[in-house]
Amino acid sequence: MINQQVRLDFERTRRLGLVEAIWGEHKTSKQIAEILLKLKEADELALVTRVTKEKAESVAHLVEQVQFHVDASCLTLGKPADLRPELGEVIIVGGGTSDLTVASEAELALSWHGIKTEVLLDVGVAGLHRLLNHLERLRRSKVLIACAGMEGALPTVLAGLVPQPVIGVPVSVGYGVSLGGRAALEGMLSSCSPGLVVVNIDNGYGAAMAALRIINSGL
Amino acid sequence: MINQQVRLDFERTRRLGLVEAIWGEHKTSKQIAEILLKLKEADELALVTRVTKEKAESVAHLVEQVQFHVDASCLTLGKPADLRPELGEVIIVGGGTSDLTVASEAELALSWHGIKTEVLLDVGVAGLHRLLNHLERLRRSKVLIACAGMEGALPTVLAGLVPQPVIGVPVSVGYGVSLGGRAALEGMLSSCSPGLVVVNIDNGYGAAMAALRIINSGL
Amino acid sequence: MINQQVRLDFERTRRLGLVEAIWGEHKTSKQIAEILLKLKEADELALVTRVTKEKAESVAHLVEQVQFHVDASCLTLGKPADLRPELGEVIIVGGGTSDLTVASEAELALSWHGIKTEVLLDVGVAGLHRLLNHLERLRRSKVLIACAGMEGALPTVLAGLVPQPVIGVPVSVGYGVSLGGRAALEGMLSSCSPGLVVVNIDNGYGAAMAALRIINSGL
Amino acid sequence: MINQQVRLDFERTRRLGLVEAIWGEHKTSKQIAEILLKLKEADELALVTRVTKEKAESVAHLVEQVQFHVDASCLTLGKPADLRPELGEVIIVGGGTSDLTVASEAELALSWHGIKTEVLLDVGVAGLHRLLNHLERLRRSKVLIACAGMEGALPTVLAGLVPQPVIGVPVSVGYGVSLGGRAALEGMLSSCSPGLVVVNIDNGYGAAMAALRIINSGL
Amino acid sequence: MINQQVRLDFERTRRLGLVEAIWGEHKTSKQIAEILLKLKEADELALVTRVTKEKAESVAHLVEQVQFHVDASCLTLGKPADLRPELGEVIIVGGGTSDLTVASEAELALSWHGIKTEVLLDVGVAGLHRLLNHLERLRRSKVLIACAGMEGALPTVLAGLVPQPVIGVPVSVGYGVSLGGRAALEGMLSSCSPGLVVVNIDNGYGAAMAALRIINSGL
Amino acid sequence: MINQQVRLDFERTRRLGLVEAIWGEHKTSKQIAEILLKLKEADELALVTRVTKEKAESVAHLVEQVQFHVDASCLTLGKPADLRPELGEVIIVGGGTSDLTVASEAELALSWHGIKTEVLLDVGVAGLHRLLNHLERLRRSKVLIACAGMEGALPTVLAGLVPQPVIGVPVSVGYGVSLGGRAALEGMLSSCSPGLVVVNIDNGYGAAMAALRIINSGL
Amino acid sequence: MINQQVRLDFERTRRLGLVEAIWGEHKTSKQIAEILLKLKEADELALVTRVTKEKAESVAHLVEQVQFHVDASCLTLGKPADLRPELGEVIIVGGGTSDLTVASEAELALSWHGIKTEVLLDVGVAGLHRLLNHLERLRRSKVLIACAGMEGALPTVLAGLVPQPVIGVPVSVGYGVSLGGRAALEGMLSSCSPGLVVVNIDNGYGAAMAALRIINSGL
Amino acid sequence: MINQQVRLDFERTRRLGLVEAIWGEHKTSKQIAEILLKLKEADELALVTRVTKEKAESVAHLVEQVQFHVDASCLTLGKPADLRPELGEVIIVGGGTSDLTVASEAELALSWHGIKTEVLLDVGVAGLHRLLNHLERLRRSKVLIACAGMEGALPTVLAGLVPQPVIGVPVSVGYGVSLGGRAALEGMLSSCSPGLVVVNIDNGYGAAMAALRIINSGL
Repeated sequence: MINQQVRLDFERTRRLGLVEAIWGEHKTSKQIAEILLKLKEADELALVTRVTKEKAESVAHLVEQVQFHVDASCLTLGKPADLRPELGEVIIVGGGTSDLTVASEAELALSWHGIKTEVLLDVGVAGLHRLLNHLERLRRSKVLIACAGMEGALPTVLAGLVPQPVIGVPVSVGYGVSLGGRAALEGMLSSCSPGLVVVNIDNGYGAAMAALRIINSGL
Repeated sequence: MINQQVRLDFERTRRLGLVEAIWGEHKTSKQIAEILLKLKEADELALVTRVTKEKAESVAHLVEQVQFHVDASCLTLGKPADLRPELGEVIIVGGGTSDLTVASEAELALSWHGIKTEVLLDVGVAGLHRLLNHLERLRRSKVLIACAGMEGALPTVLAGLVPQPVIGVPVSVGYGVSLGGRAALEGMLSSCSPGLVVVNIDNGYGAAMAALRIINSGL
Repeated sequence: MINQQVRLDFERTRRLGLVEAIWGEHKTSKQIAEILLKLKEADELALVTRVTKEKAESVAHLVEQVQFHVDASCLTLGKPADLRPELGEVIIVGGGTSDLTVASEAELALSWHGIKTEVLLDVGVAGLHRLLNHLERLRRSKVLIACAGMEGALPTVLAGLVPQPVIGVPVSVGYGVSLGGRAALEGMLSSCSPGLVVVNIDNGYGAAMAALRIINSGL
Repeated sequence: MINQQVRLDFERTRRLGLVEAIWGEHKTSKQIAEILLKLKEADELALVTRVTKEKAESVAHLVEQVQFHVDASCLTLGKPADLRPELGEVIIVGGGTSDLTVASEAELALSWHGIKTEVLLDVGVAGLHRLLNHLERLRRSKVLIACAGMEGALPTVLAGLVPQPVIGVPVSVGYGVSLGGRAALEGMLSSCSPGLVVVNIDNGYGAAMAALRIINSGL
Repeated sequence: MINQQVRLDFERTRRLGLVEAIWGEHKTSKQIAEILLKLKEADELALVTRVTKEKAESVAHLVEQVQFHVDASCLTLGKPADLRPELGEVIIVGGGTSDLTVASEAELALSWHGIKTEVLLDVGVAGLHRLLNHLERLRRSKVLIACAGMEGALPTVLAGLVPQPVIGVPVSVGYGVSLGGRAALEGMLSSCSPGLVVVNIDNGYGAAMAALRIINSGL
Repeated sequence: MINQQVRLDFERTRRLGLVEAIWGEHKTSKQIAEILLKLKEADELALVTRVTKEKAESVAHLVEQVQFHVDASCLTLGKPADLRPELGEVIIVGGGTSDLTVASEAELALSWHGIKTEVLLDVGVAGLHRLLNHLERLRRSKVLIACAGMEGALPTVLAGLVPQPVIGVPVSVGYGVSLGGRAALEGMLSSCSPGLVVVNIDNGYGAAMAALRIINSGL
Repeated sequence: MINQQVRLDFERTRRLGLVEAIWGEHKTSKQIAEILLKLKEADELALVTRVTKEKAESVAHLVEQVQFHVDASCLTLGKPADLRPELGEVIIVGGGTSDLTVASEAELALSWHGIKTEVLLDVGVAGLHRLLNHLERLRRSKVLIACAGMEGALPTVLAGLVPQPVIGVPVSVGYGVSLGGRAALEGMLSSCSPGLVVVNIDNGYGAAMAALRIINSGL
Repeated sequence: MINQQVRLDFERTRRLGLVEAIWGEHKTSKQIAEILLKLKEADELALVTRVTKEKAESVAHLVEQVQFHVDASCLTLGKPADLRPELGEVIIVGGGTSDLTVASEAELALSWHGIKTEVLLDVGVAGLHRLLNHLERLRRSKVLIACAGMEGALPTVLAGLVPQPVIGVPVSVGYGVSLGGRAALEGMLSSCSPGLVVVNIDNGYGAAMAALRIINSGL
């Protein structure tokens, strides 16, 4: 017999300081709704990543008060933490419009925890002046998240220019050898800029949680 | 004609706060010595990674005052920064004796910048009680660096237990599918623990520089 | 001329003690129906794996008395063996809801041969306490099947905690480097826990048959 | 400061019923000797795998009473368990002379725990009659371990012929696409024979521990 | 300006003795129809491979007298060569129903050149007796084509049993590590049976043309 | 807050002499339209690559005067440069009809910059006489672009026959090991013909821009 | 206890018409000598492939009358079959001096079975005239074996020019993406020339046995 | 019988304008010497790439007047072409000392054909100011060759800054995911800078020949 009642990790917030997140891609809207209802009962916040518009609408029929964030392809339940700008800002940069979803997922996950963020797209390395023009501003952020597909050189160039923590997020846009984001990932891991760290392809949420751990460690 | 005078990045320390590091693996002892002499003249510190004992001895014949660190397979030139324990400690954990070189490289690179460190080996996940026994102590560090070869599960388990920044370093020990450290790397990137970040296989120096960026960002 | 009458392996049950299983994914509903009708005539049981709901319905129009198991995506024909709890129980564990289909396929294949089973999901390693809470119960099973996607660390942690046979089943959920289940597979094969064995990605049926061989070998 | 005293998992025998094993490949003879001396003091048995003849001799200079097993490339310390033939026998088969080291490692690890074993080489599938001639005898074993390099078809053919648990061990002999054992590994994982389980390439010790878990589960 | 009139290789039949074949998968029905009309004008035969039923119907609207072969997913134009049984027969074997399309493509391509063929499916190696039962008959063929997905062991076992030319065709059915046919391909290339030759995954047409070259070389 | 106004690289034409190109594949029609409107305002030309017919029609509803090029799957905005035949001609060759889209993308991108081009398909290496027949004409071009899928041998053979710059473009048509164009790419990179250069799979636009750089360098 | 007496496949010659071959690479000279002595006693011929000069000399000390073939890196025992030129000739072509070992292994294995052979090197596709000059002669052979490293285009071009069976042998010379022979292998498998068959990288012996099967099938 | 007289491609210079080059890596010094002596007789120039110092010395014993170029690991025979600075200069840039061999091979191959060159190392992207400082000078070259290991971002950044032809050469230095140069290669192929072309890993000679084709095309 299948014992399948959901065993949610209610202690995660207490243990790690991170809001419960549900990975929505391989779950049906019914499965997502069941989890959200359980969290709602327990009066917990929730963030569901990788949800299509159609799936979001199905969930919204089953759970009141969920909110869909179209750019980030995420659902949220509950009210986010109050903004605490005194903790410092995270700037999220990207090479192009194609990085929008990943950058937005990171942006949402951070603002959901009360962190101030800014997103700067179209600062790719093929037109270096665009990145260099923003240098002063970039140097004022606490942590940088750099999203890039194709050859993924943006985080490398950035980490050679600024002293802050830089988290590279490979993006799965591309074709041929860059299809699926592997070339960008390996480029970031191979970076000649010291101290660049990397998360899985398209993992905007993971980059945000890494930034949050860093900000919390400085408290 | 080959214009090959070494163009050292003397501004790196000023720009990024990181000591000049030289990757020693693909350089001859003569090439390393030339670079070190130039740095010495400029009164700079230097750290050379991935140097065999034999190569280190050759360099020592050509450059006075270099020091070889056998566990870390590194050469250093000059006197490290004074220890600043008030910045917080970095604990470096590993699954076994086989992670010693990588962990030591990270340890040396951090202490070289004045950061307090501790190395804990033999806390692999196959005997979970060994890790759980150290939990309180691990929770007191500022940043954690977790080195692991084979299936690389240690950083995942660790990042599920503590709220700090955790930097995973895949180690190239292993055989069959784990040969070269790919399985460990992909395991860490695929981690179900939120906010784990990763550097290249065996890149102890890179993990140290990431930890340093994090510590500096909290100042 | 194509000589294509189906040559079913009617001796398999006698030779190996395993019920005939048909892999449904690359077969049309018409091809599946023909095979089932032939087995029915011969008064044999059958289990068809990897069948979508739509294909199952088409088959049901052609063959009476087939039964669809929606969680496991399987069709069965005939009446399963009587439950023999005295042979010992197989517990099937998984990291999350996403492992449900694979775990259910294993569960169905075992109960179809009269083996007692239990499925425990949401015991992933990112929240270790959930697994540790079930330890006593897990130690009472005869064989353990551990399903995991992403980094696939669950079977490694489990095999370090209990002395029984543990069969790892990589699951193809994931994205980026864990897409398709390769990272989980290689993580399990590289495991630092001694004696963990592995089957192909998503192969719940194969894990069940391995468990059955083990149980039969103890008779 | 490096805290590096060896934290041996003395509880492993009690927890899992498996003798402490040390992976010798990436350790120096000095590191191996230190571990063995600690185990000796604690009056524990030990098995060190993947040790070359030269390394074995260096260790023997530092630790009395270690014994080198040349076919298996293993060192042992202490007296093995008494043979318990009543638990059933494990037969280890291989395609050719090239599988000898891996088969011997499995053989040694099992006999070290008191299990009766037999090794049958040269029963590869290119000359099927050699395997078929041994069928009766193979059917009398409790568990089968099948080692194969090249295309790795032996475990598949064997698991189609006998009802026992069959553990496939890919062997890294081969050239071109079979170099390193990947083709054999993937062939075994893709097997059309139900219930075949697999361990990492060349992992004779792992296959032995899996067989031991199976035998212990039947007690 | 695009100079795009089709430059058909009308000399191929004369040069190589092979009928013009058109690979249909990446062409539109309009592109296929244009090529066929040109061949028809020139009074040539044609075989179009990898055509879906829908595409075939579209082509049939544009070109009279084409014939669709549903099992082989091929279109033909014109009347095939007269059967010449005196040249010897080609037997095409496969492990299961899933190999049907590939085996049928080979069968059609050979009969189209006047070669006698037979297709035997369901002789996979997991139930070896089914193959052994046909041994006498298999030994009477001139050339053997062996199609197999999953671990692809059938051609290896076959080439160890009979002295004729055996052409292995990996089939792209499978899942996990056998997805796409790579495991089968590498298994066949790594075969321990001497003299087995291999063509690309799913390339039934290529295997047929290889068999035809062999038969023609014996004239 | 997301700062997402498009930061177009208006200086690219001035800096590199290349018209702004937009990669259309991972953008919505709305995103493409916004970029085009901005370029139109600034009175710039634009080329959008990898646009399906459906997406092109959506864009055309939002932006007047865009033109769709069906063979090349590209949208253009504005009037191309006047043809300057005195700069020399680029001949684009391909193995078959399947290379049409890639060849047309290259053709369009070059003619858009005023370069004279010609496309020759069906000159694949399996029928060598077709290529040899055009040799004199090929030798009169300034630069050659050679598109090929499957084994990708055409650029190698061509670069062995003519002294001009030859740019190889791997094409993603194929199946089995040639699926996605990797085999063609690696074949071109491994070429035994000296001085062959390569761009990413299907990157007709990139090959055109490389040819343009070459032509401009000769001015 | 290890039951390790060599079980040689004495029936292979009778069953398949092929002389016993021993793969020498992963065997010690002692192991090779034992096998040869057993074959000598049984009055059988033998061919040992992939033997270094040093290993050959060690074997020669243990077994009288073995002969080393330096170009082919093979040892033979006994007297080869008488030459039967009436069976037809096999021509072995290669792109360069680097293909010598593989071509020689094929040449030796065929002449050992009484087949007439010729080896033509330096007919690579980068200088096509060299191949075209030999066309008439190549068309008179019964079977062609084409060895090629790098991009491996030679067998493709050849199979487009002649109607005979062509067996491609990828060669492991190369660097970068062609290192190890994978690019050549995949190029041959992807070939646009119909009916080309392929064996494993560097498998000159396998190509020879395939040619022998073809020649025998024409008797 | 082996027909193995060397068939040198004496027409290459006439056909392609390129000096005969011999790839030295997989040839013995005796084989290299034989080729050079034949070329000397024919009064041809020659360039042998990838020759170790030891091999070079062996060759020098057999062939008078060869010259070894230690930085480039090349041997040359004969007197290079006179320098023709009016054809324009090729600048070869690299990220670090580790790129020296590859850059020198390109430099030698070009100067051997009379082309003016300059090599600039240590202009890697981790310290961008070093590259930007040379911008004016880089813009005055006719063609640029950019060598880079690790993540290989240098050619991408360069091709975004200058309008000339840029040829990327991935270099095989690196470790972990950048081992062997694959990450650099894929980064260059995936480049977001339009018109960057690429050659095989470490193929300095190939990049030089591509540059030569470009320069010749402008005559």
